[in-house]
Amino acid sequence: MDAINIAQKFSLFEEHWSPKILAELNGQVIKIAKIKGEFVWHRHEAEDEFFLVIQGSMVIKMRDKDIQLNEGEFTVVPRGTEHKPVAEQEAYILMFEPASTINTGGVRNELTREMNEWI
Amino acid sequence: MDAINIAQKFSLFEEHWSPKILAELNGQVIKIAKIKGEFVWHRHEAEDEFFLVIQGSMVIKMRDKDIQLNEGEFTVVPRGTEHKPVAEQEAYILMFEPASTINTGGVRNELTREMNEWI
Repeated sequence: MDAINIAQKFSLFEEHWSPKILAELNGQVIKIAKIKGEFVWHRHEAEDEFFLVIQGSMVIKMRDKDIQLNEGEFTVVPRGTEHKPVAEQEAYILMFEPASTINTGGVRNELTREMNEWI
Repeated sequence: MDAINIAQKFSLFEEHWSPKILAELNGQVIKIAKIKGEFVWHRHEAEDEFFLVIQGSMVIKMRDKDIQLNEGEFTVVPRGTEHKPVAEQEAYILMFEPASTINTGGVRNELTREMNEWI
């Protein structure tokens, strides 16, 4: 693998809530996504999920609190924790999680992406 | 875990080549380090290693090529691959790797940090 420029990768797609894989290592993947609006409440039974905001801002709603993430900020949503990502304006995010992670966790709906494409 | 601001975490220490842990998830850790100068040639037998440049630039020397990483760029050094990180000017980097990873891999010297502190 050569150098991967994250901003350049974001320039290659437009759609929201459709994660793209940039790298795989140690059974984990590095994904990026453009997000806007409200995602669905869901949880991942066996996977902790890392969210880093590359551009813009987002809120990760949980049942007991909201976590505001601005550019250059991250958090980890622990496995089993219900959460709902929301971005009022379009935001660019990077995720680090097990390769097995499905974006909508235990929920299946029109936002579900069973397989993520590499970019 | 609340929001973690990466730039704020970098403001908390000065030393070079001494990784600090920001988060642990799925058996992996998120580490940051300030680097300057030449590190030691080493390899990790069982761990792939992700390097992202947050500020400045670095070169990851390998036996068959050099990978130049500028701000916002990353690469993955596959397990078993000899490499030597170098930064002519001070750079800030972020790493994702298994919690078991020792910074100098199979080499032990004055740069080795067996235990990384949380910050």
